[in-house]
Amino acid sequence: LKDASGTIQLVLDSINGPAASKSFRDKLLNLNPESILSVEGVVRQRPPDGIQRKDPNGDIEVMITHLKILNIADPLPFSTNPNSSVKPTEETMLKYRYVQMRQDSLQKNLRKRSETAHIVRNLLHSEGFVEVETPALFKSTPEGAREFIVPTRTHGLFYALPQSPQQFKQVLMAGAIDKYYQFAKCFRDESLGADRQPEFTQIDMEMSFVSQDDVMGVVERIMQRIWSQVVGIELPSTFKRMTYFDAMSTYGSDKPDVRYDLKIKPITDLLLDHIHESNSTVEALVVPEGTKFLSNQDTSRLHHTITQEKFPLYGGMVNPRDLIMERISDRNKSTWTKTMAKVGWIKSGAEDAKLSSTLNESLQLNPSDLLILNKRPSGYYGGHTIMGRVRSHLAQTLINKGHLKLGDPLQDPRFLWIVDFPLFTPIDRTVTSAAEQLLESTHHPFTAPPNSDIPLLFNNPTAARAQHYDLVLNGQEIGGGSIRVHDPVLQKYIFSRILRMSEERIQRDFGHLLDALRFGCPPHGGLAIGYDRLMAILCGAQSIRDVIAFPKLSGGDLFVNSPSMVDKEKLAEYGIACV
Amino acid sequence: LKDASGTIQLVLDSINGPAASKSFRDKLLNLNPESILSVEGVVRQRPPDGIQRKDPNGDIEVMITHLKILNIADPLPFSTNPNSSVKPTEETMLKYRYVQMRQDSLQKNLRKRSETAHIVRNLLHSEGFVEVETPALFKSTPEGAREFIVPTRTHGLFYALPQSPQQFKQVLMAGAIDKYYQFAKCFRDESLGADRQPEFTQIDMEMSFVSQDDVMGVVERIMQRIWSQVVGIELPSTFKRMTYFDAMSTYGSDKPDVRYDLKIKPITDLLLDHIHESNSTVEALVVPEGTKFLSNQDTSRLHHTITQEKFPLYGGMVNPRDLIMERISDRNKSTWTKTMAKVGWIKSGAEDAKLSSTLNESLQLNPSDLLILNKRPSGYYGGHTIMGRVRSHLAQTLINKGHLKLGDPLQDPRFLWIVDFPLFTPIDRTVTSAAEQLLESTHHPFTAPPNSDIPLLFNNPTAARAQHYDLVLNGQEIGGGSIRVHDPVLQKYIFSRILRMSEERIQRDFGHLLDALRFGCPPHGGLAIGYDRLMAILCGAQSIRDVIAFPKLSGGDLFVNSPSMVDKEKLAEYGIACV
Repeated sequence: LKDASGTIQLVLDSINGPAASKSFRDKLLNLNPESILSVEGVVRQRPPDGIQRKDPNGDIEVMITHLKILNIADPLPFSTNPNSSVKPTEETMLKYRYVQMRQDSLQKNLRKRSETAHIVRNLLHSEGFVEVETPALFKSTPEGAREFIVPTRTHGLFYALPQSPQQFKQVLMAGAIDKYYQFAKCFRDESLGADRQPEFTQIDMEMSFVSQDDVMGVVERIMQRIWSQVVGIELPSTFKRMTYFDAMSTYGSDKPDVRYDLKIKPITDLLLDHIHESNSTVEALVVPEGTKFLSNQDTSRLHHTITQEKFPLYGGMVNPRDLIMERISDRNKSTWTKTMAKVGWIKSGAEDAKLSSTLNESLQLNPSDLLILNKRPSGYYGGHTIMGRVRSHLAQTLINKGHLKLGDPLQDPRFLWIVDFPLFTPIDRTVTSAAEQLLESTHHPFTAPPNSDIPLLFNNPTAARAQHYDLVLNGQEIGGGSIRVHDPVLQKYIFSRILRMSEERIQRDFGHLLDALRFGCPPHGGLAIGYDRLMAILCGAQSIRDVIAFPKLSGGDLFVNSPSMVDKEKLAEYGIACV
Repeated sequence: LKDASGTIQLVLDSINGPAASKSFRDKLLNLNPESILSVEGVVRQRPPDGIQRKDPNGDIEVMITHLKILNIADPLPFSTNPNSSVKPTEETMLKYRYVQMRQDSLQKNLRKRSETAHIVRNLLHSEGFVEVETPALFKSTPEGAREFIVPTRTHGLFYALPQSPQQFKQVLMAGAIDKYYQFAKCFRDESLGADRQPEFTQIDMEMSFVSQDDVMGVVERIMQRIWSQVVGIELPSTFKRMTYFDAMSTYGSDKPDVRYDLKIKPITDLLLDHIHESNSTVEALVVPEGTKFLSNQDTSRLHHTITQEKFPLYGGMVNPRDLIMERISDRNKSTWTKTMAKVGWIKSGAEDAKLSSTLNESLQLNPSDLLILNKRPSGYYGGHTIMGRVRSHLAQTLINKGHLKLGDPLQDPRFLWIVDFPLFTPIDRTVTSAAEQLLESTHHPFTAPPNSDIPLLFNNPTAARAQHYDLVLNGQEIGGGSIRVHDPVLQKYIFSRILRMSEERIQRDFGHLLDALRFGCPPHGGLAIGYDRLMAILCGAQSIRDVIAFPKLSGGDLFVNSPSMVDKEKLAEYGIACV
């Protein structure tokens, strides 16, 4: 007999009790697994020898006095024993999700998700946060590229499902709900992946009269409480911080996994006299003794992988000549820079030996090291550099080969705040004239710069930093937020002069928000934590699907079989037709 | 200076401190109300006399040492003082909802809503409930008349927003999540009213291996905890119960307000020898001494009101001749039954005096009483009878005239369970042949009958009771639920033989649920509490809009101005067009 709390052995007396009738006994013994029983009996110590047991668990058993079959199960589509030799496909498991839920791992994950939410809520309530439900029927915006729209019975009018409650939560601050939180359901109509679902859950927060440090402090306390109560680990009272610039230049990523070293070193300055293109950056990554455990085949594969990836922010695909894998040995120790000349990065010349020596010293390069070099357009844009991808592929290769072992993600979590993001990002990086350069918000247009950077908005907006902060755990972004613009004049300036939105669009899409700012809105800021991703980490799950009760695959919901057709007559009620 | 916690007087020294500069002082004193300030100062006892105060609250004040203007407010669209003489329209208040939130009542309501949710969650967690989020992107069903549909980028395929998580929560029971709860967002595309919103919140629960009493017990404990912690009132440990039959025959409603008496008395049996139509029921309602405080005008108005209402389940509109308002006096005490003969209910005859005497005795009728009689098709269907509407209008008239005073809905709440609903309801009540009579589920097709009534499903399904229970408070239904069918054979029988669904439809709409029942599903039941309505009661609000942060009016969301147009190109991405 099993339920969510465990399994217990039942013992049937074939002489006395309900099983005295042979026909009933046969019926019982032929019951399919997972049939539903109601049992009364005497709990007793299991005899040390005696009846042969299929399941050796437990010290006690139940001697049955009354038994009732409540629901006979048909043979299951797959076993609830995760160790069963027959492995169902993920499609089959999702179709019969309830059978999978009886397996230990999913059952535990769903219960842990509930417990963790309760821990978070208790903390936030104790800190005076107010839970507010914001609308799921929100407004469609022409720029909301990945939103779901919802037709109404008023011809031609649509709602849209929110990608986040951003505008509502800011307005709550104007409404004196000075500490808001919500486990918010958000929607994004995009292709699915291990950590993408069309509907997902955020721990959404916003606070009035706060600094960046205040918001980060709340989130640190949440994580401390979760790790203490769910994992049993006490976290440090504050988490490390790193600027976007440091993260991108040292790790090539704005969500670096700092559990391993493999730091990137920019060497452009050392090449300055030699370099062909003035607007290029050259970065180096040294794997100490790397040639000893990475074969030529390994490095070719890595080279191939990177040149197959797309780097739109760095000019598209990587030219194979712009990525050098150099195996350092006694032989080429002072001549390897020739390779850079050979592929045309630097002028060939007589200074090879001097250049090698400078670089060898700077990179602390030794024979048998593996040296990886990349030349790319200068600047740091988006989530990663080319070398950042090299670093992460390289780490995966080293892990696979047993040369790198990462700490336990739960027992030794490396929380890290990334701060000082650029407030704006050029849309087209080839435009150099500031007057012609079109900018977009790096995160969203409500993000505030630090006060000290406000003057930059008027003469050098790309240099302005954002009061934005991302929380990164073991290379995954699990939350992000910012201090928002609360001054309606500044907000309007950003919309119209920096993002160059038309007056019509500003009024249509953001007029209500500008109103809220100008009718008395305190300074405020907030953050949202990706709850599905956080739970996947806490459950050691590969995919957020493993911590969601009824997730969707790319085909939709395999349990209820949706999305599905809707007949014409019904569509007509909403004033729409399929075309 | 005010925030959500209260108001405090600020004192400005015009000689020392920040206000020494006249220009700053002028700026400050000319600040619009609700501008955002940051103030440092010395808290001190307010002097007993001295500076004249606009706001007489509080014993302390702040002597300002530093002051910073953080955000200057424009003149507000309406005052945040609820006692202001200018009353904005509801449309204006919703457009600037954040200004309204600063008014005491809405601010308190939203905070109370958060606190109450936390109280409920704490109780449910302590009882071992697991919070599970079920999908918002659900499946469209052709019969889901009032659902919202959501187009996808896969041509012709749609999701639908759930009207409740009914199927998912039942399936969780098959998945060993033996106690489930969720504050579930539900959607219904129907005309709005004081207690109708297109999106609303339910405290949704489901439990395995429970009886009706078990589920009711959980709900009673929730209400006890809420009333104890929010209202400060200890409720009885169990709530009163009443059968649907008793509620309908005595109060003419399946959600009777039992704070006042005005009981309905069926008198059909007493008229049996006299009555014209065999399939009619005659009901009486006596207002003791009613003629003393209800004028002829009052009763005509009531008569008019009722004959304007629609009673589709009782044959459409009420024929004015079928509703009698009889003012009893010494004069007509023994002759009033003639009125029934005059309108053709009963045969005119010699027995008037005897009939009057029988009825007078049975109804305990006295001179100066008001007697109301209604003749209608027999049977109890739906939520109310004609006489039930009379009763409730009558009560409202008596309240308006000061002749009836109801207890405080919070301090003296009359919780009541309504049980023993009919499991099925005839769709067309004029059909008398059982073979031809089409039935629908009174609530939903997953509701189980009590075991004792299962045999009735095969020969007299309309006589079968449902294990359904509604929780009624002061005449409002605040929750409802049932024990569900867990036997796949019985469930299939109900779908196909009683509700006469086609095999194709059963498979398409309910195949996944039947699967869940046949692969080992325990007996289970649950309930959902209408959280918006409950909060409206707890906040003493007239409308659920007053307990929702951003509610919609019939035109939609006036704050963000949605629903709105979506351009053709975008609709084309979803494969739809407006027609």
